[in-house]
Amino acid sequence: MTELAAIILAAGKGTRMKSDLHKVLHPIASRPMLMHLMASVDALSPAKKVVVVGSGKDQLEAALAGSAELAVQEPQHGTGHAVQQAQDALVGFDGDVLILYGDVPFVPTATMQAMVERLNAADAPAVVVLAFAPEDPTGYGRVIVEDGRIVKMVEQKDATDAEKAVKLSNSGLMAVKSRDLFGLLDRVTDDNAQKEYYLTDIVNIANADGRVCVAVTTDPFDVAGINSRAQLAEMEAEWQKRRRVQAMDDGATLIAPETVWFAWDTQIGRDVLIEPNVFFGPGVRIADNVKIRANSHIEGAQIASGCEVGPFARLRPGTVLEEKAKIGNFVETKKAHLGKGAKANHLTYLGDATIGAGANIGAGTITCNYDGYFKYQTVIGEGAFIGSNSALIAPVKIGRDAIVAAGSAVSRDVADGELRMVRAEQLVKPGWADRFHDAMRKKKEGK
Amino acid sequence: MTELAAIILAAGKGTRMKSDLHKVLHPIASRPMLMHLMASVDALSPAKKVVVVGSGKDQLEAALAGSAELAVQEPQHGTGHAVQQAQDALVGFDGDVLILYGDVPFVPTATMQAMVERLNAADAPAVVVLAFAPEDPTGYGRVIVEDGRIVKMVEQKDATDAEKAVKLSNSGLMAVKSRDLFGLLDRVTDDNAQKEYYLTDIVNIANADGRVCVAVTTDPFDVAGINSRAQLAEMEAEWQKRRRVQAMDDGATLIAPETVWFAWDTQIGRDVLIEPNVFFGPGVRIADNVKIRANSHIEGAQIASGCEVGPFARLRPGTVLEEKAKIGNFVETKKAHLGKGAKANHLTYLGDATIGAGANIGAGTITCNYDGYFKYQTVIGEGAFIGSNSALIAPVKIGRDAIVAAGSAVSRDVADGELRMVRAEQLVKPGWADRFHDAMRKKKEGK
Amino acid sequence: MTELAAIILAAGKGTRMKSDLHKVLHPIASRPMLMHLMASVDALSPAKKVVVVGSGKDQLEAALAGSAELAVQEPQHGTGHAVQQAQDALVGFDGDVLILYGDVPFVPTATMQAMVERLNAADAPAVVVLAFAPEDPTGYGRVIVEDGRIVKMVEQKDATDAEKAVKLSNSGLMAVKSRDLFGLLDRVTDDNAQKEYYLTDIVNIANADGRVCVAVTTDPFDVAGINSRAQLAEMEAEWQKRRRVQAMDDGATLIAPETVWFAWDTQIGRDVLIEPNVFFGPGVRIADNVKIRANSHIEGAQIASGCEVGPFARLRPGTVLEEKAKIGNFVETKKAHLGKGAKANHLTYLGDATIGAGANIGAGTITCNYDGYFKYQTVIGEGAFIGSNSALIAPVKIGRDAIVAAGSAVSRDVADGELRMVRAEQLVKPGWADRFHDAMRKKKEGK
Repeated sequence: MTELAAIILAAGKGTRMKSDLHKVLHPIASRPMLMHLMASVDALSPAKKVVVVGSGKDQLEAALAGSAELAVQEPQHGTGHAVQQAQDALVGFDGDVLILYGDVPFVPTATMQAMVERLNAADAPAVVVLAFAPEDPTGYGRVIVEDGRIVKMVEQKDATDAEKAVKLSNSGLMAVKSRDLFGLLDRVTDDNAQKEYYLTDIVNIANADGRVCVAVTTDPFDVAGINSRAQLAEMEAEWQKRRRVQAMDDGATLIAPETVWFAWDTQIGRDVLIEPNVFFGPGVRIADNVKIRANSHIEGAQIASGCEVGPFARLRPGTVLEEKAKIGNFVETKKAHLGKGAKANHLTYLGDATIGAGANIGAGTITCNYDGYFKYQTVIGEGAFIGSNSALIAPVKIGRDAIVAAGSAVSRDVADGELRMVRAEQLVKPGWADRFHDAMRKKKEGK
Repeated sequence: MTELAAIILAAGKGTRMKSDLHKVLHPIASRPMLMHLMASVDALSPAKKVVVVGSGKDQLEAALAGSAELAVQEPQHGTGHAVQQAQDALVGFDGDVLILYGDVPFVPTATMQAMVERLNAADAPAVVVLAFAPEDPTGYGRVIVEDGRIVKMVEQKDATDAEKAVKLSNSGLMAVKSRDLFGLLDRVTDDNAQKEYYLTDIVNIANADGRVCVAVTTDPFDVAGINSRAQLAEMEAEWQKRRRVQAMDDGATLIAPETVWFAWDTQIGRDVLIEPNVFFGPGVRIADNVKIRANSHIEGAQIASGCEVGPFARLRPGTVLEEKAKIGNFVETKKAHLGKGAKANHLTYLGDATIGAGANIGAGTITCNYDGYFKYQTVIGEGAFIGSNSALIAPVKIGRDAIVAAGSAVSRDVADGELRMVRAEQLVKPGWADRFHDAMRKKKEGK
Repeated sequence: MTELAAIILAAGKGTRMKSDLHKVLHPIASRPMLMHLMASVDALSPAKKVVVVGSGKDQLEAALAGSAELAVQEPQHGTGHAVQQAQDALVGFDGDVLILYGDVPFVPTATMQAMVERLNAADAPAVVVLAFAPEDPTGYGRVIVEDGRIVKMVEQKDATDAEKAVKLSNSGLMAVKSRDLFGLLDRVTDDNAQKEYYLTDIVNIANADGRVCVAVTTDPFDVAGINSRAQLAEMEAEWQKRRRVQAMDDGATLIAPETVWFAWDTQIGRDVLIEPNVFFGPGVRIADNVKIRANSHIEGAQIASGCEVGPFARLRPGTVLEEKAKIGNFVETKKAHLGKGAKANHLTYLGDATIGAGANIGAGTITCNYDGYFKYQTVIGEGAFIGSNSALIAPVKIGRDAIVAAGSAVSRDVADGELRMVRAEQLVKPGWADRFHDAMRKKKEGK
């Protein structure tokens, strides 16, 4: 089997995004679009990955974190010129090259595979073009195929009426043997209005050499490019739509699927109920028989079977809910581990906390995990009962079956089975309120 | 007038739902789909209701709670066989039989009535078939009608081209006299590829006897069946869409109707404003001139005229708001009765509580209604003022016009007009914070 | 240049709205529909604005607050009669008159301008009719144009088949010279089934005089009228859709654009991320590089560059966030000014408060700004640290770099660099909780 290299073009300016963030780093389903593409590429175990970048190199370098090489195209003279920038990185590489685009993020691995396989077929094509047939191809370059061979690549403006009637369009993605690629590119000229070197021209050049060029066809969604925030939103919508159908097919009930947003890696079991308006950030794993109630916001959380979350719950990264744990309304968790059947039902903040099985966290409980400089742990034992409106000042340990009285600010450890109460005397002033009301009513009228 | 019996088939395995819950118990608009159907049946005051069940009998028994008889079909040999299982339950019954499906929940009462009336018309039909004419009938059995009589029922696969061109399709629902039904069923054979007894065959058998069979036609929505979670979601969406239009026609403003979810029994007055993203669970009644602000979640609540709720309010069952009461953001109520003009505007939990007219519940107030074992009541008098961040430790009574000072944990009753303050001394440590910051900054840098 | 007067008809009963609020005061994008129209009119600096009202005069008077004159049409005898009621208010005025409708709120200024310009063209038309060409014109009066002149205005019911085939329809809006208008109106009769005086008739009358009448054409959305809550919702949806596209074009990312609701005056910078389900009320201004996370509700707030808001944040009028300030989940602000980098991340209420740069407001902090009669200020110094679950009892001042210990109810000013702790002794009862659990378990079983 021949080795594979992927060249990913990402040097476009992305002007229409009006953003300081590199276009290919704008996320869809909580993941930069480039990383969606890289994941599909990685499934083919390529020997080389080269990302060609213009401006914003630092941003891409940070995002790729060494997982691909970077080549800089500066100045930018078209797609052919961009691919040439990857030549240095591919010195010594002899194999198949896939040419991809960072802003065309949803090319399926199977499609890439099909391109490579076609490239290695018996008729040994010089170029495999990934084509698609949109409803309305106006504006796209057309791929003219006769007897299974591409006989011509033609831009909309240069097309005859007969060619304009052809729907098959050029996605720009190609597969080419490395030994062919750079030689063909060397022969591309910038003899056009834009004075650019177009990658597409290698097809016509190979054709002129008598080489076979062929098309592999795919769904328009798979090669849709993103050039504006509106297109970003459309792609997000399409991705979410497909993901929601998948979740329902897998046995989850979505009362209003159009109001549930998944991240790229969300995992959901069967007999999971998701009420309207739930947002999943990355890193969420939900077992069977879980209820996620309306208006919940969940990131980086593992939720075991039988749990109930929300409405109005906010689970942040590091949240682990064991079986039948319950997080109720206006509750936030962060790096919080709740044992089996533990409950925090109302108006609570649990940060940097371990809560034992069966513990009951009263309404309005706050783990005071931060002193302005460092974070500290709160550990609550099994079966403990934290009275409402309590502040647990970390680092602090509440023992097994211990009780913290309502309204207590607990600054020292509480032993197993102990009651801790931090509460001042009840100061009683009979009639004071009546006199206050009288005085204030007069003041208000006097105003 | 003849008596009516309803046979509801609910023995399908519902495999595509991938659920431990019986298919017909999956809810739409917060009500199991079977119960939507039963309510429509009940409006005709049937003498008998028999639900034919396969697996999941216990679940159905619990849901029906004695409101219908159950017959078990085990093993399952088709729809005709299923109907036969109801025969024992109908011994001695002589009247009209409606055959319905638990997963076809939205057959209107008027449609059922029309079927029964047609069955009792002068031409005394043997079978009344409920038919519908979908845009694309592919896959459905066709109902071939000539001169007002059904001359043939034909499956898609057996249909001629001319028959395939017929749009009128078989919903499966029928009305038959009990005295005809079981005799016809006895003559149905399983002489087909699936080795099943098909209910539909009784039409062709009756026809062969020279009996009249006729179709009553209805809207496709009315006979839409639910076999997957995706179809469940579609049906929910359609139901909600119709309900939203109704609410607007009745004089409610829905800023974004597509983000408001009603329950089957939600009642809403006129001049009610509903901001985006409001979810109603069952048991909600809202009077005129009420504002429900965005992101509210409301179940089992009665809301009187002039009230304002939300944004981010969560009203749970047993909430009663009298005129002009106000529940604000991040406030949860449960079994809470708020008198006229009472207010709980921020970050509060009111559970098992009675709040007098005009009382003001400060931000961060918690009724501590639970000790881990039992629930207790909080009673707050008219005109009382509960200072912010207070914990009211139930059982506890706060008197008329009483004031609870901010931050108090009140564990004993407060008398009318009394001030209660539970607050420790203000401990002042001048310069301590400056020294702390210095120390921590050093520690942080040292890290 | 001739002077301009606008007559806005708003005397319709609006019966289908089923509302006590005048139809033209129902809001779209948080602004009464009439005020949308008035703003478009005002851009032309009209010399006179007359709103013709039937019932609900007081409501309109309050809404217009002197910005237009009111004329009462009582009883109501049709649109022609309605326009006549404005005659007194226009005594002495000699110029162009635009006739508009309070329930047709989105006529662009440019369209009004085009009507006026057409009225003043060389051929000196008597009447300029604003027309539109809907997909399906059924029900609308048709505008029959020949050689650039309106030759006939004809109602649907009176139209010939040829006329019915014409799509160009009458919006009802007109531009007429004041010197022509009232003379033409005097000649309109109520000789029709409804016994009403129709404004439209002035076109046919002017035509009979040999005067030129012409049409200016516009988009159907621009002249869409609102007669029901369903139409109100449709118009809101269309307005929001356009506004969302604008926001994305301007460089904001909307993950789910269909769940973001803008107000008429929302201002948003570039590289602003808006997660799903965010509602903007009026008066919001957001700078560049801001994150608005899911489920936030924002009104009357200024948000500077680098800020992060939500999820589940509720910003109320008078909120000002300086650079890099952060408002987290279940936090409400009202008349609150947060300095650069100040943070309130969890479960907090900040009302009538000034928070210094870099201050950290702990979870569960409440500014107690209300005593049932008056509101009071809380001032927090730069770099101060408010421990969790604290109540700041206003009026109160917390000094620069001061620390308030968790759980404190602070009723007196805290000096710069001071530590304030308001906390009772830690009462320790070893074994008490174990005995309590035993007793309660027995009681529960005994039940």
